[in-house]
Amino acid sequence: MRPRVIVYIAASVDGRIATADGGIEWLKPYESADYGFDSFMKGIDGIVMGRTTYDQVRGFGAWPYDGAPVMVLTSRRLADPAEGVEAAKSPRAAIARLEALGARRIWNVGGGKTIGAFFDIGAVDELRLFTIPLVLGAGPMLVAGTRRPATLRLAEHKLHAHGVVEQRFAPDDA
Amino acid sequence: MRPRVIVYIAASVDGRIATADGGIEWLKPYESADYGFDSFMKGIDGIVMGRTTYDQVRGFGAWPYDGAPVMVLTSRRLADPAEGVEAAKSPRAAIARLEALGARRIWNVGGGKTIGAFFDIGAVDELRLFTIPLVLGAGPMLVAGTRRPATLRLAEHKLHAHGVVEQRFAPDDA
Repeated sequence: MRPRVIVYIAASVDGRIATADGGIEWLKPYESADYGFDSFMKGIDGIVMGRTTYDQVRGFGAWPYDGAPVMVLTSRRLADPAEGVEAAKSPRAAIARLEALGARRIWNVGGGKTIGAFFDIGAVDELRLFTIPLVLGAGPMLVAGTRRPATLRLAEHKLHAHGVVEQRFAPDDA
Repeated sequence: MRPRVIVYIAASVDGRIATADGGIEWLKPYESADYGFDSFMKGIDGIVMGRTTYDQVRGFGAWPYDGAPVMVLTSRRLADPAEGVEAAKSPRAAIARLEALGARRIWNVGGGKTIGAFFDIGAVDELRLFTIPLVLGAGPMLVAGTRRPATLRLAEHKLHAHGVVEQRFAPDDA
């Protein structure tokens, strides 16, 4: 059985994951609560993300994902990648490589095109969506550029501090 | 005090209100449950919508909003408008005209640009968002083209049938 792929992500009420310039500072006021991230990360042994997300996280300074192998979806070379980071040309290639490295639970970090590409091949096994009570009105979407809709099953929903609602979805056929 | 403006709308998990071609047939499987729409409509005495939404609803056949005055945000003429339908050039003009017609509670039907334009002038008093457990991946957004983010306050959240989660938001300063 291939590794399980989990999208764990925050979005605005209008389904955006960043401002138009890619900014995520709007998340700051909501960060003080416990959304179960540490416990989630303890179960993760592989990470996949899109090129834009990677370049942004790389620009933050210290690489935050030491220890877990990371696949970056990109057709371009990664200059000076952080340790454990590799390029992958497709979702399938990323999953296969992480599986070869022993991963059983993969965090799909995003962004929207990467999440969409995984939905397109039916490779999102869980979506944990944290809706931040805020309208951005512009900026990249949670899911972008998919070829077909995907029906989901709401497995759980939960109210966190700050009015943040978590919805946990599984594929409808699961 | 100006009339209260309420957005009551369904969106996909990824914040889209229609497919890329404007279709809403994906809502059909979820329509059999009671989302409180009839009771909501009983309290509505004015309606505002964008031009694209109007043209689409007009194309459905019988005009569904008999009785309540409807403002359509548009700079173009409305050919053969349904009874009670008028054109308005701006959110403020629409609100003022509906107020003059005695409206106290206005339903902002959408689409995303119309909702965004109302957020831009601080004229969304309540947002009732029904998240349908489905990813569209493409199509118009719940809120589009706003000039600034708006923080909200989660007033209520509720699980409906079919795994539909309702979140009811008020302006953060309310």
